[in-house]
Amino acid sequence: MRVLGIDPGLRNMGWGIIDVAGSRISHVANGICHSVGSDLAVRLLSLHEQLTDVVHRFQPDHAAIEQTFVNKDGVATLKLGQARGIALLVPAQAGLVIGEYAPNKVKKTIVGVGHAEKHQIEHMVKLQLPGVKIAGADAADALAIAMCHAHYARASSSWEAALKKASA
Amino acid sequence: MRVLGIDPGLRNMGWGIIDVAGSRISHVANGICHSVGSDLAVRLLSLHEQLTDVVHRFQPDHAAIEQTFVNKDGVATLKLGQARGIALLVPAQAGLVIGEYAPNKVKKTIVGVGHAEKHQIEHMVKLQLPGVKIAGADAADALAIAMCHAHYARASSSWEAALKKASA
Repeated sequence: MRVLGIDPGLRNMGWGIIDVAGSRISHVANGICHSVGSDLAVRLLSLHEQLTDVVHRFQPDHAAIEQTFVNKDGVATLKLGQARGIALLVPAQAGLVIGEYAPNKVKKTIVGVGHAEKHQIEHMVKLQLPGVKIAGADAADALAIAMCHAHYARASSSWEAALKKASA
Repeated sequence: MRVLGIDPGLRNMGWGIIDVAGSRISHVANGICHSVGSDLAVRLLSLHEQLTDVVHRFQPDHAAIEQTFVNKDGVATLKLGQARGIALLVPAQAGLVIGEYAPNKVKKTIVGVGHAEKHQIEHMVKLQLPGVKIAGADAADALAIAMCHAHYARASSSWEAALKKASA
């Protein structure tokens, strides 16, 4: 079973792909989609194209996306929301099973505490995926989200059903 | 020149299309894309498919999108942001010229005051597009956004360039 983790962002959208076989996980690929410029629609289009390319290249079965932190900065929330719309659309267009996870749930699952620092996440990702080369902090987060999904989805019935479907 | 106006929303996304020839505008079509259910990714996919279908059917040259009002309700802003990401992506994928307008700019342009009520907008849209049947308040807003774009874009150089390109 192949899982695509996505850390949504308008400027930098991290992605990471792992293979899951029983309790074993292994690294497939990771990277960051960048969008620059002042034209919002063009930036969203660029993110859509880059992320669609990742899905086509690596053919994941599941996608896991970080829930966006809603804060008092409405403008930042709106920007993130627009990028997150793209991050959800791409796997939906490919018919993937999609899971959403709050940032502190990801941290708690991977590091053991809900308020872990960025470098702790990267450390634990590297520990569980030996030899992995990580494209940046957003890609490390994306791999952590994929690992979090593997942890929770493995136990759920939808995961079992997906496994059966994949092996049928 | 054909303009697609979009009033973004997760549950109801209004759209309206007008033709612009010099100072004359005429109604082409309007409607509302609906998305229901609890699965956010599926809802965004549904909006993307419906809006893409509108673009394919009516082949607009320009798109105009309402700027989302950022308020203190972060959850609502995030929802709108995600829907707005789709509303911007679809015309970008079709290569349309895209304009963005703040709600009070649209109201001021169409009604004459920045704090006009919904029913005033619908009234003015009906007055300028005689005989139009409007699918609902969100579709009326979308037509108003398209009319606002026609008003501002007509004067701008990009509009002139687009006109020249279209008539070449």
